[in-house]
Amino acid sequence: MKFCSSCAAPVALKIPDDDTRERFVCTQCGMIHYQNPNMVVGSVPVWDIQGEVKVLLCKRAIEPRYGYWTLPAGFMENQESCRQAAQRETIEEAGANIELHELFSVLSVPHVDQVHLFYRASLIDTNFHAGTESLAVQLFSEKEIPWDEIAFPTVAQTLKFFFEDLRQTRLGSPFRLHEHDFHRSIQTD
Amino acid sequence: MKFCSSCAAPVALKIPDDDTRERFVCTQCGMIHYQNPNMVVGSVPVWDIQGEVKVLLCKRAIEPRYGYWTLPAGFMENQESCRQAAQRETIEEAGANIELHELFSVLSVPHVDQVHLFYRASLIDTNFHAGTESLAVQLFSEKEIPWDEIAFPTVAQTLKFFFEDLRQTRLGSPFRLHEHDFHRSIQTD
Ligand SMILES: [Zn+2]
Ligand SMILES: [Zn+2]
Repeated sequence: MKFCSSCAAPVALKIPDDDTRERFVCTQCGMIHYQNPNMVVGSVPVWDIQGEVKVLLCKRAIEPRYGYWTLPAGFMENQESCRQAAQRETIEEAGANIELHELFSVLSVPHVDQVHLFYRASLIDTNFHAGTESLAVQLFSEKEIPWDEIAFPTVAQTLKFFFEDLRQTRLGSPFRLHEHDFHRSIQTD
Repeated sequence: MKFCSSCAAPVALKIPDDDTRERFVCTQCGMIHYQNPNMVVGSVPVWDIQGEVKVLLCKRAIEPRYGYWTLPAGFMENQESCRQAAQRETIEEAGANIELHELFSVLSVPHVDQVHLFYRASLIDTNFHAGTESLAVQLFSEKEIPWDEIAFPTVAQTLKFFFEDLRQTRLGSPFRLHEHDFHRSIQTD
């Protein structure tokens, strides 16, 4: 950030009164331009084939991590709820009709200023198709998941949590919320 | 937003290629200036006095809702995790030493482009004190809570969820995650 988005004058880094952090402050109109983390919201869409649970993954058609596999997810937009964002991204990237269940994972990635949320979901049918940001969409059982070709650590971690919980549900436990923070660098290219 | 923060030229609302929404796009350098929801993160700090559970609230010393009561919470900063944000805001606003427990409520407020997260927490001692953004901090039992003077609907809802769950825990149930969306207008003045 170099210029004020309100008056076009240069901004400077300084600590405003009653604040403890450096912010971009306009040298002319004084506006403080805060910068805050972004939310990435998606789903874990599941299809049960005669007792075998498969998860829907999308092969990315965009950078970063072109060609790698991900759960359907993307940046939350203004004027929508987390649940609406999860549903929208699943439709946009995977063309999938889902019933959204409860929040499943909350993952902070502070070094890229992001928080990732994933909801469990059930596919209503198998009429899914790759959206413009996907090269392919495909169902994977736990054994079939291409672990070495998963786009982001938050996706790999959410898939691990999911299959661990799935085994527990067969012993009578419910799915539960998982929290995890990633404090190291994420490979993005 | 009127001007590009990168080159100071005017921006215009248009739908970029491969997008479906209007964005602020620079008329000179072409940079797309996305606008996304902000996260507000806080805690429900609890002190147990001989079996009577009290919650720590802060009386706001800032607008909006000056003089109204809130749970300690504030805008998440870049380079921190959700848990770090909850802990930091509790220290800044309530001067409170807490042990942070699991995520308790996730509340979308789409008409103000916000998502609010609250973590359950235990006070380690009662050496809390009002920070610069608080006029006072005080412990309240469920009966003592000033329900008509709570600053924000997300705070009132989280307190309701908390005391409902508290009754259930006395019957053997665990605390659980609560999700709620606020789709109507929030009074802010
Ligand atoms: Zn300015
Ligand atoms: Zn520009």
